[in-house]
Amino acid sequence: MVAGRLKRDAVGLFPAVVQQYDTGQVLMVGWMDDEALHRTLTTGRATYWSRSRREYWVKGDTSGHVQWVRSVALDCDGDTVLVQVDQVGPACHTGARSCFDGRELPAAQGSPAGPTRSASVARAAQRPDLAAVSATSTGAPDDDR
Amino acid sequence: MVAGRLKRDAVGLFPAVVQQYDTGQVLMVGWMDDEALHRTLTTGRATYWSRSRREYWVKGDTSGHVQWVRSVALDCDGDTVLVQVDQVGPACHTGARSCFDGRELPAAQGSPAGPTRSASVARAAQRPDLAAVSATSTGAPDDDR
Repeated sequence: MVAGRLKRDAVGLFPAVVQQYDTGQVLMVGWMDDEALHRTLTTGRATYWSRSRREYWVKGDTSGHVQWVRSVALDCDGDTVLVQVDQVGPACHTGARSCFDGRELPAAQGSPAGPTRSASVARAAQRPDLAAVSATSTGAPDDDR
Repeated sequence: MVAGRLKRDAVGLFPAVVQQYDTGQVLMVGWMDDEALHRTLTTGRATYWSRSRREYWVKGDTSGHVQWVRSVALDCDGDTVLVQVDQVGPACHTGARSCFDGRELPAAQGSPAGPTRSASVARAAQRPDLAAVSATSTGAPDDDR
């Protein structure tokens, strides 16, 4: 059984990565327990466990932003699933298509020649909410590797 | 600070979804704590916390299968990150490009007309290790919604 192959955290949950099946965009990460996965596999509707509300939620039941399941895969360690869906409308409660849209952190870009200051790091200097992150992440750009 | 915007589980970890930046393939899910994220953001090398070995690991340090960081984004809830990378070689310790390769579970496919039996469900009937899953997931294909 799939339940026997899954590892869960201390409260029985594992992350579900949700990806738009045709574009490849990562839309969100939800949390499932065995029952949520079972419902997802059998109903064709992505179903999660809400850690804040402590209840199952079928994505789209209240918003209409349904996730029609196309495929579900378990990873090699059995501790996460990848759910490919056809997302109706935005996946994010903010109205964004993806929960990651516009939320890039300032990151040095890696390459065999070493890290380089990315465009997002430069942009972050103009965003007060990311200024502290920028200071942290650019504080020691050259002291590694 | 990014640390103040992140939610963590009981042991201080959050999942990091790793995606090949150009193809969109989801390669793996790793786990980070604040320090692993800081290292990822500053070094350009994806760095995780190994829950089994209880140590930081820089992806590729032993295998050579480096993940060069292209971008990192926090999700709307601040409880997971999406790391876009340029993956050298296979991401999976099994030698597969992705940790999800060939690990599809039998899933009913959703559509406005209701769930349908997917090709993977049919295939699973011929795989003993998935037979129980198949029996579960196809046991009640019509009693929902």
